[in-house]
Amino acid sequence: MGDRPSKHLKYQTPLQTAVTVNMDKLAESGMTGLIDPIAPGVPPGSDNGHFSLFGYTLNEVPGRGYLEALGYGLELKEGEIAFRCNFSTVKRNRKGLLYVIDRRAGRIKDREAAELSKAVQNEINEIDGVEVEFHHTLEHRGILILRGNLSVEVSDVDPHKVNEPVLKPLPLIKSKKAVETARIVEKFVLETYRILNNHQVNVEREFRGLPKANIILPREAGGKTLVKSFKEKWGLKPACVAQGPLYRGIAKSLGMKVFMVKGATAMPNTNYKGKIEKALDLVEEYDFVYVHIKAPDVSSHKRDSKEKTDVIEKIDEAISQIVELSIQNLSDTVTVITSDHSTPCETGRHSGDPVPILISGQGLRRDAVKSFSEKHCSSGALTRLTGRHVMQILLDQLNMAMEEGLKMPKPSPYFRADYEPLRLKK
Amino acid sequence: MGDRPSKHLKYQTPLQTAVTVNMDKLAESGMTGLIDPIAPGVPPGSDNGHFSLFGYTLNEVPGRGYLEALGYGLELKEGEIAFRCNFSTVKRNRKGLLYVIDRRAGRIKDREAAELSKAVQNEINEIDGVEVEFHHTLEHRGILILRGNLSVEVSDVDPHKVNEPVLKPLPLIKSKKAVETARIVEKFVLETYRILNNHQVNVEREFRGLPKANIILPREAGGKTLVKSFKEKWGLKPACVAQGPLYRGIAKSLGMKVFMVKGATAMPNTNYKGKIEKALDLVEEYDFVYVHIKAPDVSSHKRDSKEKTDVIEKIDEAISQIVELSIQNLSDTVTVITSDHSTPCETGRHSGDPVPILISGQGLRRDAVKSFSEKHCSSGALTRLTGRHVMQILLDQLNMAMEEGLKMPKPSPYFRADYEPLRLKK
Repeated sequence: MGDRPSKHLKYQTPLQTAVTVNMDKLAESGMTGLIDPIAPGVPPGSDNGHFSLFGYTLNEVPGRGYLEALGYGLELKEGEIAFRCNFSTVKRNRKGLLYVIDRRAGRIKDREAAELSKAVQNEINEIDGVEVEFHHTLEHRGILILRGNLSVEVSDVDPHKVNEPVLKPLPLIKSKKAVETARIVEKFVLETYRILNNHQVNVEREFRGLPKANIILPREAGGKTLVKSFKEKWGLKPACVAQGPLYRGIAKSLGMKVFMVKGATAMPNTNYKGKIEKALDLVEEYDFVYVHIKAPDVSSHKRDSKEKTDVIEKIDEAISQIVELSIQNLSDTVTVITSDHSTPCETGRHSGDPVPILISGQGLRRDAVKSFSEKHCSSGALTRLTGRHVMQILLDQLNMAMEEGLKMPKPSPYFRADYEPLRLKK
Repeated sequence: MGDRPSKHLKYQTPLQTAVTVNMDKLAESGMTGLIDPIAPGVPPGSDNGHFSLFGYTLNEVPGRGYLEALGYGLELKEGEIAFRCNFSTVKRNRKGLLYVIDRRAGRIKDREAAELSKAVQNEINEIDGVEVEFHHTLEHRGILILRGNLSVEVSDVDPHKVNEPVLKPLPLIKSKKAVETARIVEKFVLETYRILNNHQVNVEREFRGLPKANIILPREAGGKTLVKSFKEKWGLKPACVAQGPLYRGIAKSLGMKVFMVKGATAMPNTNYKGKIEKALDLVEEYDFVYVHIKAPDVSSHKRDSKEKTDVIEKIDEAISQIVELSIQNLSDTVTVITSDHSTPCETGRHSGDPVPILISGQGLRRDAVKSFSEKHCSSGALTRLTGRHVMQILLDQLNMAMEEGLKMPKPSPYFRADYEPLRLKK
């Protein structure tokens, strides 16, 4: 949700422009501030942004490819790796380099992407003894899985920028496995160009003046990583309401129970109200409910600050029930609104600007801030903190943080799996 | 002093409610901010909260038991350990578990607790070759000392919560010593229940409808730890004015000279003015004077926000002399007001909310804050810092911090015990 001032919004941010009566009420009845999900000026990826907010360190993040695979329902064994992929548009130059023209192939529609995906699946099942799977997910997005004895230490093929050549995958550490993995990824990418460039779907797209989806660009390799579950770490039983595969994967990798909602799309046309209603149901049974709404980020990447403003207003409308309940009944519940990163609409890319946060609940301190925006939150009582502090603060606001120095099992006296009561001798 | 909004104070904190003209004057003539004594959302214990404010790290804290023993005038040798204890009220259930009904046995009065203490001392002198000492201190509080070759790595018997069973002490690390220590503590606790449950004092208490003080619950084991003295660390000759044994122990363990004041009680009826007058005397001879006033925390634990408000006003009245002097004469003195932790009256327990701080003295920067409270200080120029920063800032405000890069002994050029002057050859 965090942004920078936008030309199209009279140099205000979408959050400043949007009418957000409910977020403002929560801000007024609680504490606000700014969060650097990772560190000041560091643009988070959605995966590590979330891991930081949940209190994990960067080296505990398994790699986005793995998380997306998990979110899509695919399992990996040790040595198997997954890549996040895009169908992209490349143009071959005279020297045989492939220049990226559109990293998302004009945000190709699902139907066409699925057909191209099938073509790739039919032709590539195996490369040099390594089993190859490609799965199309949403729009231009897909997942590549390599099943073998491989390394995640391989560089991205996607140059993450247009008008740059597609990059040769390189081993990131000195290891035979990484060299072998890079070689296999290179073969895969060259094969997809061969298969897709003259595919009937692309011939038709070209005829219609649309960019060809003529290559698949893998990036952000990831494999299974062992981290403490959210429950083990914080003593809270967690649930998640999310639609995008990455967010479901993040939740699953931390042992959260993941729920989907009818009409949720991970797009601006999602079922906002349905997600919030589901969350309110889950609060009865779970200690921690994480609701992810992808839409503001989608609009940001499309560089559409007006759509983003509209999306924020829809979120605000959907949370009206939380505001009513938090004032009336949810006396032992704390509501938090924040983001895993800023995405300025002017650039369409994640930035390292801090994100606004509000924490609201009965009995908590209040500050003087009465409006939820990047600017207002900068004078809030939470001041400016980093993502890894958020969970500890929430635990404390719920009166569940353990006093330092007590010789009790962490994270809290309420979670004492290893404890025994004293017994009187008979 | 830090708190959260209180129902009984129209949702303001005691510090917001109290009339504090003198603190407000100091805030106006100085800098304010918020301090996380340890880290955001981490509720400090009084021992580690103080150690952090004095610039020490958590692993330099010797354990509260040791500090209380030291404050009470008891010395420990290597291998000897001390526990903070409470007289508590437990109820035995059918399965032989002891459920904690009142962690402080109705805040039992000194006279009765002393009598029960004597009964325990008479019957337990030794367990399996380890010398056992129990000392009653104030109200429900006491200290257990075990003299042998023991480990501090043993878990708390006190569950830190009512309606929970007394916990079996467990070794916190894999070591023979820790296992042995846990076994001895277990024997001690079971013995105290046997001795106290039907003691005449408790029979009478029960008759009067008061909770029995029928067990002693040890916690927070500590032993002698070698840390740099305050003088070695900061180059300042320190004194302390405190009454509570823990605070005296903290000061002693850091090599501060500890002073007591007539009429000081570590309670809301303490001699506020006397403590401040003593501090003002000590400023003549010492470089750093630490004054601890326990009363606001006592009222917080009693969940009495009105008494706490009253206590804060008494502190404010007592410091009027500092305000006058600091404007007139104390040109080379810096005054700091802060807390080692927040204790919201609504919960009666330490919380991880940051504490307000003010730093005032002639020639220092000023900010726009004119009132000393949690809310006002959140917009102060010190912003939000952690406890370990405070001493370095004070040293700098006194123009005694050494410039980084100089090859001089830390902490300051004013402290050069290890230095030798250059001598001319004869």
